[in-house]
Amino acid sequence: MKTRPVYLDHAAATPLDGAVFSAMRPYFSKQFANPSSIHAPGKEAAKALSEARKRVAGVLACNPDEIIFTSGGTESNNLALVGIAEAHNFKGHIITSAIEHASVLEVMEYFKTRGVSVTVVGVDEYGRVNPRDVKAAIRDDTFLVSIMYANNEIGTIQSIAKIGSAVQKQEILMHTDAVQAPGLLPLNVNKLHVGLMSFSSHKFYGPKGAGILYAKRGTQVMPQLRGGGQERGRRSSTENIPGIVGAATAFARAESHREKEASRLSKLRNWIIKEAIFRIPDALLTGHPRERLPNSASFCFPGVSGEHLVMRLSERGFDCSSGSACSEGALEPSHVLLACGLDKNAAKGSLRITLGASTTQAQLARFALVLQEEIKKLR
Amino acid sequence: MKTRPVYLDHAAATPLDGAVFSAMRPYFSKQFANPSSIHAPGKEAAKALSEARKRVAGVLACNPDEIIFTSGGTESNNLALVGIAEAHNFKGHIITSAIEHASVLEVMEYFKTRGVSVTVVGVDEYGRVNPRDVKAAIRDDTFLVSIMYANNEIGTIQSIAKIGSAVQKQEILMHTDAVQAPGLLPLNVNKLHVGLMSFSSHKFYGPKGAGILYAKRGTQVMPQLRGGGQERGRRSSTENIPGIVGAATAFARAESHREKEASRLSKLRNWIIKEAIFRIPDALLTGHPRERLPNSASFCFPGVSGEHLVMRLSERGFDCSSGSACSEGALEPSHVLLACGLDKNAAKGSLRITLGASTTQAQLARFALVLQEEIKKLR
Repeated sequence: MKTRPVYLDHAAATPLDGAVFSAMRPYFSKQFANPSSIHAPGKEAAKALSEARKRVAGVLACNPDEIIFTSGGTESNNLALVGIAEAHNFKGHIITSAIEHASVLEVMEYFKTRGVSVTVVGVDEYGRVNPRDVKAAIRDDTFLVSIMYANNEIGTIQSIAKIGSAVQKQEILMHTDAVQAPGLLPLNVNKLHVGLMSFSSHKFYGPKGAGILYAKRGTQVMPQLRGGGQERGRRSSTENIPGIVGAATAFARAESHREKEASRLSKLRNWIIKEAIFRIPDALLTGHPRERLPNSASFCFPGVSGEHLVMRLSERGFDCSSGSACSEGALEPSHVLLACGLDKNAAKGSLRITLGASTTQAQLARFALVLQEEIKKLR
Repeated sequence: MKTRPVYLDHAAATPLDGAVFSAMRPYFSKQFANPSSIHAPGKEAAKALSEARKRVAGVLACNPDEIIFTSGGTESNNLALVGIAEAHNFKGHIITSAIEHASVLEVMEYFKTRGVSVTVVGVDEYGRVNPRDVKAAIRDDTFLVSIMYANNEIGTIQSIAKIGSAVQKQEILMHTDAVQAPGLLPLNVNKLHVGLMSFSSHKFYGPKGAGILYAKRGTQVMPQLRGGGQERGRRSSTENIPGIVGAATAFARAESHREKEASRLSKLRNWIIKEAIFRIPDALLTGHPRERLPNSASFCFPGVSGEHLVMRLSERGFDCSSGSACSEGALEPSHVLLACGLDKNAAKGSLRITLGASTTQAQLARFALVLQEEIKKLR
């Protein structure tokens, strides 16, 4: 009998939670009306939308009208960055970090072609941004700072509250890509001192094709989808009610389990990090040793191809990643690992395992053995 | 016992088809991996994506690499228009019509602020664009023509093949918003002579939050979502596999039932048009008497508020619309009806009924009686 594969790639995608699916279910074929319609089923759909918005706002401790539902994390990041830059006529200065997700860095590349000045602050060997570097980079024409909450490849958590506080004191907008945070890190926007925050539903057991952008009241976000004027004119398109209900349900659920689950996962994570380094003594832990996502363990194994390792491990029934899902297949070494000071060869030997709701100690114990065997074979 | 409401608003939203839902179902919680991941479940997801793309291409008679999956009709229209205009550095001239959907017309308003010249061609009393008007509007710097296939409010079908042929002869790109067409009108891109074509999944019994853009090979569409480089760099974002599988399944299903269903619906539509005009003699049919969507009947009733009528009909168990879902609630009269030459007062008395898979003759017979009663009461 073939054992069911063990999924250790929760930073790339999570399965839709059963309870979340149940919450979405009525909105596919029964309560399917367009929430802009003025007939009774349309009004019912509008009510479901409004309730979903309130649930999300409850988690973030913000106002419901500060929530914009999008199609995912990439759209949330693009809308935050381009929407703000366009409100500034693409003039002025933005600060970001060297280890952001492609959906931030590619927008920064685009900004350069549009005339926006971009300062990219570096990180230390653990992938941490020094808040002083951000402060030092601020100019008179800086209108936006975008630093991710926690890194998707190496799990390193940034001091967002500290950076956000310094940035907002100067009346500059603070955005954080918090795609990896729900269910793992606190999300109160006031305590984090952020004005914009991005989320992707399928990273927290919600449906794919749904995202959230928090935008503080008074923030002028120019719409990037123009049309029927939905989402208070900030994002036109018929609202994806099943997706929105799913995202909101999953978001609230992730928050309600957060402390307990983060504690459970960080114990498992600590165990697998120790075990991997014990079994493969030249393994290098990437990212910060303590300030890291509770579910994330990432390594470089010298002399091993990360991609080959991922494929071998998958054949043995363990699904992990070598860096982020988005950049796999690209033969370039991870920009995150290079920014941490690793050389290209070392960076190519990277492996990321990200734990989740289904992860158990027994799975990780089997995984540690198989990892040791496969690395031995590949060397 | 309360009768189940009769839904006559299929142009605003359709219920997700049961067979489509079954096709989507495995991709929510079981085969949930990110298609960019290189492990086995990631490759399975990539395969599902590739098969969905082929199914859509089969319907349009195009190549799979000409299909871009989006989050809906609004995004498809925005990507087509802005993506092409940006490739032309927002310089030059675009032609469109006065009766386009807001997701086209609002982009045109934006273009004017960016320096693009826009010519809006008018329509006749039936909402038809004269192909000669389009030809006459072409300038040396015209790079795009965008005319909708069939109107969402009045159902009028345009001579897209004729317009597209004339436009493409001059090596100008032809876009058509075909959101209302699937399952009702033929979609072969070669016969229609279009280079860009937009669709929204929830208009053809597919899921909300999913759309399709056809973009002919060689067309430079600048991405409007930047990031991981999905959809061949034209639309970054983790692919919404359940949504994409659902959209493709629904698209192929709509096409396979098209001729039979279009014929069934047009008979029902002809019946309700005749019956309504018989019962309410001063009713005015809006849109074209013959060149109209098989499922669409639209009227103006002098001296009646369309919004009040829709609410009264909904209370009586018949869900219809007064214009498009997107513009309801807005107190302005429909730009489509005004473009057809109706005055503001007449336009405010509009009612649209759009038939669908669940519509029966018996429903329409009951509806005709109730419509007559309610109009009498409102007058």
